[in-house]
Amino acid sequence: MTKRFYYEDLVPGLTFDLGNHTVSREEIIEFASEFDPQPFHLDDEAGKASILGGLACSGWHTASITMRLLALGVLNDSSCQGSPGIEVLKWRKPVFAGDTLSAQMEVISARVLRSRPHLGMVTMRLETRNQNGTLVMTYDNPTLFARREHAA
Amino acid sequence: MTKRFYYEDLVPGLTFDLGNHTVSREEIIEFASEFDPQPFHLDDEAGKASILGGLACSGWHTASITMRLLALGVLNDSSCQGSPGIEVLKWRKPVFAGDTLSAQMEVISARVLRSRPHLGMVTMRLETRNQNGTLVMTYDNPTLFARREHAA
Repeated sequence: MTKRFYYEDLVPGLTFDLGNHTVSREEIIEFASEFDPQPFHLDDEAGKASILGGLACSGWHTASITMRLLALGVLNDSSCQGSPGIEVLKWRKPVFAGDTLSAQMEVISARVLRSRPHLGMVTMRLETRNQNGTLVMTYDNPTLFARREHAA
Repeated sequence: MTKRFYYEDLVPGLTFDLGNHTVSREEIIEFASEFDPQPFHLDDEAGKASILGGLACSGWHTASITMRLLALGVLNDSSCQGSPGIEVLKWRKPVFAGDTLSAQMEVISARVLRSRPHLGMVTMRLETRNQNGTLVMTYDNPTLFARREHAA
């Protein structure tokens, strides 16, 4: 099955708007209860008393929401073969209940693998902003994509 | 309320065993459906056909499971004030249904903040292994902790 994006299509400098997602109070508490049960992610008063200034999204939740936008916006119509990791991730500002997060991806580098020349490593820079345009999270994500000329 | 771990207690070289969690097929698919809907995280056949070699956990799921172990093992009995990010995260090996993940944390550096001397930044190194002792994920996580002498 032909995909829209192969390694060759993901040229450094290219950017993609990945859409948005509004984060509810219930989602914040549900994610935190399962994966990051720290008081400032679970309770309004504990959030207000913390450096975060209010009930705030787990950083891993913000990253997971961004992952969903990236999968639906690009990866699921691509030759993506998974990722070996994250180079730098910064949680720059807290994410609060009711915030609408939008994500953008920019291709910052691309190279064919010497060891597996049918694959290329594409480093994507993800930027997630809230409804005021404030950057809340950034990370760089090297990811493997099959090359078009080697695809079935 | 007195906590067990303040900045002063988190001395470089100290390690903590954070317990373990067995990942079910249902959990893998549930997380992926919500946050990382790529075929190799959702479907056995797509997983087998991929580089991962089988239905595999989203890397963000592995990170979130490790976060839970860290919160329950250390942070929730500490003066933790949240984290500005992740320095390097490597997904070294796939995590499959039925794998039992165990996590260890080592304090690798600690410094008091000049700008806010009641706080210290502690960099924690997380290592997550499967039931065979194989390292599946590592990351370094700078995190803020209040100092004991400044606690109420």
